[in-house]
Amino acid sequence: MIDRLIERIEQCGAPIVVGLDPTFETIPEKIVADSVKSFGESPEAAAFAMLKFNREIIDAVAGVVPAVKPNIAFYERYGIDGIRAYIMTIEYAMGRGLMVIGDVKRGDIGSTAAAYAGHIEPIPMFGRKFEIWNEDAVTLNPYLGEDSITPFLDAIRGRDKGLFILVKTSNPGSADLQDLMIASPAPASHNEKKETNPASGSGKGKGKGAEGCPLYEHVAGLVSAWGEGEGLMGQRGYSKVGAVVGATHADTGARLREVMPRTFFLVPGYGAQGAGAKDIRRFFDAKGGGAIVNSSRGIIGAWKADGKGAGHVGKSAHAAVLKMRDEIGAVL
Amino acid sequence: MIDRLIERIEQCGAPIVVGLDPTFETIPEKIVADSVKSFGESPEAAAFAMLKFNREIIDAVAGVVPAVKPNIAFYERYGIDGIRAYIMTIEYAMGRGLMVIGDVKRGDIGSTAAAYAGHIEPIPMFGRKFEIWNEDAVTLNPYLGEDSITPFLDAIRGRDKGLFILVKTSNPGSADLQDLMIASPAPASHNEKKETNPASGSGKGKGKGAEGCPLYEHVAGLVSAWGEGEGLMGQRGYSKVGAVVGATHADTGARLREVMPRTFFLVPGYGAQGAGAKDIRRFFDAKGGGAIVNSSRGIIGAWKADGKGAGHVGKSAHAAVLKMRDEIGAVL
Repeated sequence: MIDRLIERIEQCGAPIVVGLDPTFETIPEKIVADSVKSFGESPEAAAFAMLKFNREIIDAVAGVVPAVKPNIAFYERYGIDGIRAYIMTIEYAMGRGLMVIGDVKRGDIGSTAAAYAGHIEPIPMFGRKFEIWNEDAVTLNPYLGEDSITPFLDAIRGRDKGLFILVKTSNPGSADLQDLMIASPAPASHNEKKETNPASGSGKGKGKGAEGCPLYEHVAGLVSAWGEGEGLMGQRGYSKVGAVVGATHADTGARLREVMPRTFFLVPGYGAQGAGAKDIRRFFDAKGGGAIVNSSRGIIGAWKADGKGAGHVGKSAHAAVLKMRDEIGAVL
Repeated sequence: MIDRLIERIEQCGAPIVVGLDPTFETIPEKIVADSVKSFGESPEAAAFAMLKFNREIIDAVAGVVPAVKPNIAFYERYGIDGIRAYIMTIEYAMGRGLMVIGDVKRGDIGSTAAAYAGHIEPIPMFGRKFEIWNEDAVTLNPYLGEDSITPFLDAIRGRDKGLFILVKTSNPGSADLQDLMIASPAPASHNEKKETNPASGSGKGKGKGAEGCPLYEHVAGLVSAWGEGEGLMGQRGYSKVGAVVGATHADTGARLREVMPRTFFLVPGYGAQGAGAKDIRRFFDAKGGGAIVNSSRGIIGAWKADGKGAGHVGKSAHAAVLKMRDEIGAVL
């Protein structure tokens, strides 16, 4: 997955992923009204409007960017109908040649994490395997530690799938836990346990940030180490295990780029959340690779921002993506 | 919600929540076979088997325990059909007088967290409000900090809903981040920001664990502080904002019980994960209140463990719950 993503980024000349996070604020009223005509005033109508809106965005950005990133929260909100729209959005985007990063931020203990891994691996059932979710990659939350990640590592090992694990998020609240200074390495009992694990046993990542560093840097060390396990490194210098590093923290981005040289970054927070192109350069490697930048509202809401109106959703999104591509291209 | 939960616990004499985490390992073959007859070998059949199995468990434990806790991962795995089974399980349990804690462990930045808050608040749509998910409470992951929690606080304020935020989880990997020693308080810029927030501005919780404590204890301080905000304290001495504290760490449980006197604990890890009744006492307050203990496999898989077979799912679950009630009752 990571090699394929890198290749697509190069083909498009755009390290950009479009966040498909539709709301009633970004979907034109006409799309909603048409949907209500078919489905009544119901969650189904809301979900269908999202799907219809997404298709317009997808048609406009396919071939221009390598990937889209629907955040499942915006779909889950509408229950079963919303989840259907999420899955149909994935199918539609893939049909148009786009890769799909499912922004699900899941995290749970081992046996439960294995169930969540169904997002990126076929589900065994009745002696067969069913592709149900089928994202190319998903985002994960690391708070529950290694055994919450392992089932996902197993799911992507030797397969064309990937992960992006939260390291430092783009929101103000990311400071609350992620910026806390870690005083000491994990307790001895924990380290003993880890020695049986090949990923950590290498000592890689472990030393980094084990003492006197912010929590996010410690997590960065864990993510790096997980990503160097067997069957997880790609051919282009980056692991299938990537990291989420918010665009709103440029110094942090630069520091993490240094300590995680083989970890690909998914960088949210561009545009609406406040980060611009000059902040972005530092998240990339010397050759201008190693990262993909997400913009959601800046692209899908462009038709409102540029004042061109509801008939212009796709064209405005297309123009916004080209502008973003040029802005980022200019600094790389 | 928290007052109602406390009342139900007292009525039942059982601070027990049954984890509804069905898999093909715990569902009798006959239930699966019947489901396949109706729906073919499909995710729909798997989902219907889960629902049918859950109903048997729910019928057996209703009136004996106050609540059930389906972990959405086991349902989400099967896509739309699985989510439907999750929602129908919630409806069925509520119809039988059980409270439902949705174990969803969601966490995302502010605007996205507001979408996830749809689990516990009505969704505004077309000038009306739709109850779509309707859990009584959900679990949340704190890694993204306060702005990831705020929309949920707003959702439960003045309403009969609750939260359980992960503090220290029951799995071995919980040591990886949660046990790390924090050296210093959060950066100054962050503290300045916090002064505008009433929950943290009180200084409560903030001081606790800001220096020289494990990360989970720092999180405990945040969770306590969040729980003391306006409209969040119940009438029975506990906040609607609870904490998840794994049964497998008894010393930690005791310590957290001390530093979070107004925070109700959801305690997973009893039974299959290794913790027994003697470990459990320390998670409760002096009067034997303040906590509810979860068991999943120990209850729903009891028919396998006691050798009584597939015709005995409900009876075995019922017996297992009574045994657990007596074990816990003996130490309280």
